Amino acid sequence: MQKSLIAEFLGTFWLVFGGCGSAVLAAAFPELGIGFTGVALAFGLTVLTMAYAVGGISGGHFNPAVTLGLTVAGKFSKGQLVPYVIAQVAGAIVAAGVLYIIASGKAGFELGEFAANGYGEHSPGGYSLMSALAIEVVLSLFFIMIILGSTSSRVPAGFAPIAIGLALTLIHLISIPVTKTSVNPARSTGQALFVGGWALQQLWLFWLAPLVGGALGGIVWKAVGDEK
Amino acid sequence: MQKSLIAEFLGTFWLVFGGCGSAVLAAAFPELGIGFTGVALAFGLTVLTMAYAVGGISGGHFNPAVTLGLTVAGKFSKGQLVPYVIAQVAGAIVAAGVLYIIASGKAGFELGEFAANGYGEHSPGGYSLMSALAIEVVLSLFFIMIILGSTSSRVPAGFAPIAIGLALTLIHLISIPVTKTSVNPARSTGQALFVGGWALQQLWLFWLAPLVGGALGGIVWKAVGDEK
Amino acid sequence: MQKSLIAEFLGTFWLVFGGCGSAVLAAAFPELGIGFTGVALAFGLTVLTMAYAVGGISGGHFNPAVTLGLTVAGKFSKGQLVPYVIAQVAGAIVAAGVLYIIASGKAGFELGEFAANGYGEHSPGGYSLMSALAIEVVLSLFFIMIILGSTSSRVPAGFAPIAIGLALTLIHLISIPVTKTSVNPARSTGQALFVGGWALQQLWLFWLAPLVGGALGGIVWKAVGDEK
Amino acid sequence: MQKSLIAEFLGTFWLVFGGCGSAVLAAAFPELGIGFTGVALAFGLTVLTMAYAVGGISGGHFNPAVTLGLTVAGKFSKGQLVPYVIAQVAGAIVAAGVLYIIASGKAGFELGEFAANGYGEHSPGGYSLMSALAIEVVLSLFFIMIILGSTSSRVPAGFAPIAIGLALTLIHLISIPVTKTSVNPARSTGQALFVGGWALQQLWLFWLAPLVGGALGGIVWKAVGDEK
Repeated sequence: MQKSLIAEFLGTFWLVFGGCGSAVLAAAFPELGIGFTGVALAFGLTVLTMAYAVGGISGGHFNPAVTLGLTVAGKFSKGQLVPYVIAQVAGAIVAAGVLYIIASGKAGFELGEFAANGYGEHSPGGYSLMSALAIEVVLSLFFIMIILGSTSSRVPAGFAPIAIGLALTLIHLISIPVTKTSVNPARSTGQALFVGGWALQQLWLFWLAPLVGGALGGIVWKAVGDEK
Repeated sequence: MQKSLIAEFLGTFWLVFGGCGSAVLAAAFPELGIGFTGVALAFGLTVLTMAYAVGGISGGHFNPAVTLGLTVAGKFSKGQLVPYVIAQVAGAIVAAGVLYIIASGKAGFELGEFAANGYGEHSPGGYSLMSALAIEVVLSLFFIMIILGSTSSRVPAGFAPIAIGLALTLIHLISIPVTKTSVNPARSTGQALFVGGWALQQLWLFWLAPLVGGALGGIVWKAVGDEK
Repeated sequence: MQKSLIAEFLGTFWLVFGGCGSAVLAAAFPELGIGFTGVALAFGLTVLTMAYAVGGISGGHFNPAVTLGLTVAGKFSKGQLVPYVIAQVAGAIVAAGVLYIIASGKAGFELGEFAANGYGEHSPGGYSLMSALAIEVVLSLFFIMIILGSTSSRVPAGFAPIAIGLALTLIHLISIPVTKTSVNPARSTGQALFVGGWALQQLWLFWLAPLVGGALGGIVWKAVGDEK
Repeated sequence: MQKSLIAEFLGTFWLVFGGCGSAVLAAAFPELGIGFTGVALAFGLTVLTMAYAVGGISGGHFNPAVTLGLTVAGKFSKGQLVPYVIAQVAGAIVAAGVLYIIASGKAGFELGEFAANGYGEHSPGGYSLMSALAIEVVLSLFFIMIILGSTSSRVPAGFAPIAIGLALTLIHLISIPVTKTSVNPARSTGQALFVGGWALQQLWLFWLAPLVGGALGGIVWKAVGDEK
């Protein structure tokens, strides 16, 4: 197997295990819990850390919307798009499984929403489908633009993982109350498979919106930012 | 249209959508909300991320007080001052609009203060007009000095977005209780237009103080920090 | 004595004094306490700061699992493994002692759990031995991979302490509720010696799991990431 | 006047205005306040930001204990020690004054402890004089070591402000409950002058301990870390 696909598998595992893990295990711990701020930090740091670790091997996408956006912007080979997405989704599913095993090792464990993304009655703050759709598109669009910009030749080498990781932290600081924040169909899929029911029924939005946003980000960047 | 103006539009959109968005959607979420610390982090990360993404295109000001300060310091072309400010204010207004649409997609939505800046009875902690004026001038002055210093030839390339973004986080950690923190007339204008009434009546201070602080920052830097 | 061993002693002292110190002194301070997020940040920053300070002298391991993982990956000399581990454990024990002296200088001081790692009834969230074992192995494995990746020739010099330090922050954001987070046998040993009883009885797990994870991390990296 | 002294004045002003300002204005704001974590972040970011801004002009000490430690380590000219300390203390006093003016512009303002450092009954957690002395010496010692290490030729240029600023954040995460954290006699002096009484009586400790720690840090570094 290509090392780049293993790297994408590991990176997406880490994104889901670390991000959703912090949400499931630590966010609502009585009095000392990390809250949305801690979860936002955790998601961002999964990407920051693995982008340094394996970014040089696979590019460090860990997210189908990123892979699509880079492809649209002409920065990634079309032929690798599907294998990357499969590796990412596989990493996310395995991560959700390992997290499930660990989380359930607690007396009185209940699955609850297990950090699955949702809208309407499954939005933490009760936001509508339209709000969820809009915010996921806007945030994914800017996420891809930040990735394309910070990895462009205009920025000295080495800083991109900081910009990209902290962009994901920022995105969570804004939108956890709306959808628990996806901007990443792989992350959404892993958790939804374990929750089932409503989470699978709402999963379409967390493929559609990030992919649309990612593609738009690639298009906007080509128009505004491309070095050519 | 110049790409630099599009970049300023997008960067200021992100600053307002991310910073004010985190405040409106996530700050006061029951128990798990991000509080002032999370909002401060969000504002700073909007600038850190977009300065990496498009700083190489427009300089990454996203703020009329920054553009003025750089102009006063002789680091920015006077002829571009007005177009930059227009692009910034336009980005802020559109961001406030998109945020309004998303935030209102919630049962029982009330506009409230919508993160608009204020003093006196509209200061979160009830601080006076004079306190608001003083803190906004002081913070804007140091903000511009940090921008000029971290982008000077004394600092290796690539670190400035970290210094500048985290300076904005710091500024919010200090002053949200006083004015909800402006240091940026564009950011203040976008929110005030949607709140109307008191917010528009108090808006003058959030143009005056940041612009005075920005200009003073440019003057101090020319005296103390200028290379050669 | 070799300067590298003094550096490892000092670095591990700082990791334990800073990380466990923040937990013991500041985490649960009424209303203003730093909670798990602050403790996670503190642990990460101990490594970030001392990796910059003395990383160039000793490599900046501060952790037997890291030294083992690097040895397995062929990046560290086998003959130095034992001296490094001794220096690390000594630093952790002295740090726990100094922390004990300072913490006890308070009216009504009680030792409590003194940030010692635990599982089962000594897990903050009541997680089982198996959950503790699993999460410590997984997190140690990724920690070592991030260390190997961020210090590889693929990443420009200077960024590794950021990636590694923030990886430790992330790891704590996920797992404090499960084990109070070890991933470091030296850190666990220092605290356990002062708590005694249950902490010493459970200490085996916090040697076994991090060392297994560290070795696995070295193996995975050799297969996937090695530059050759 | 030398530009380096103006830079030290401005940097120490920012450290005190930002760090103590966040404590006084924002730490205990009902429900949304930034707590000790936010204050710790603010202190660290004052140094990170001004070290980038004016570090190339003055070295970016902003702290008499740092200036002493660098002098002991042979990295700073003895003849500049006293002028630097005077500029730092002046910056701190002016900052405390401006903060006083702003903070008092609130109905029902009470000075309270105004972020002045203390021990015994003026320690937030009621820690003894000996605990305060010990922790201030240990933290100052490591702070100076981190400064000397991160600015040594072993670390690529540009990273030191990150290491040093975040070291100060870490130091506050550990020790605000003990002394409100000094490690900086200038910072302690500015606030004590406005509080008077007990704060002035306890001020000796916050000169003694940081200076002893700073000097020890310089000595340890000369023994362990010095290049060549």
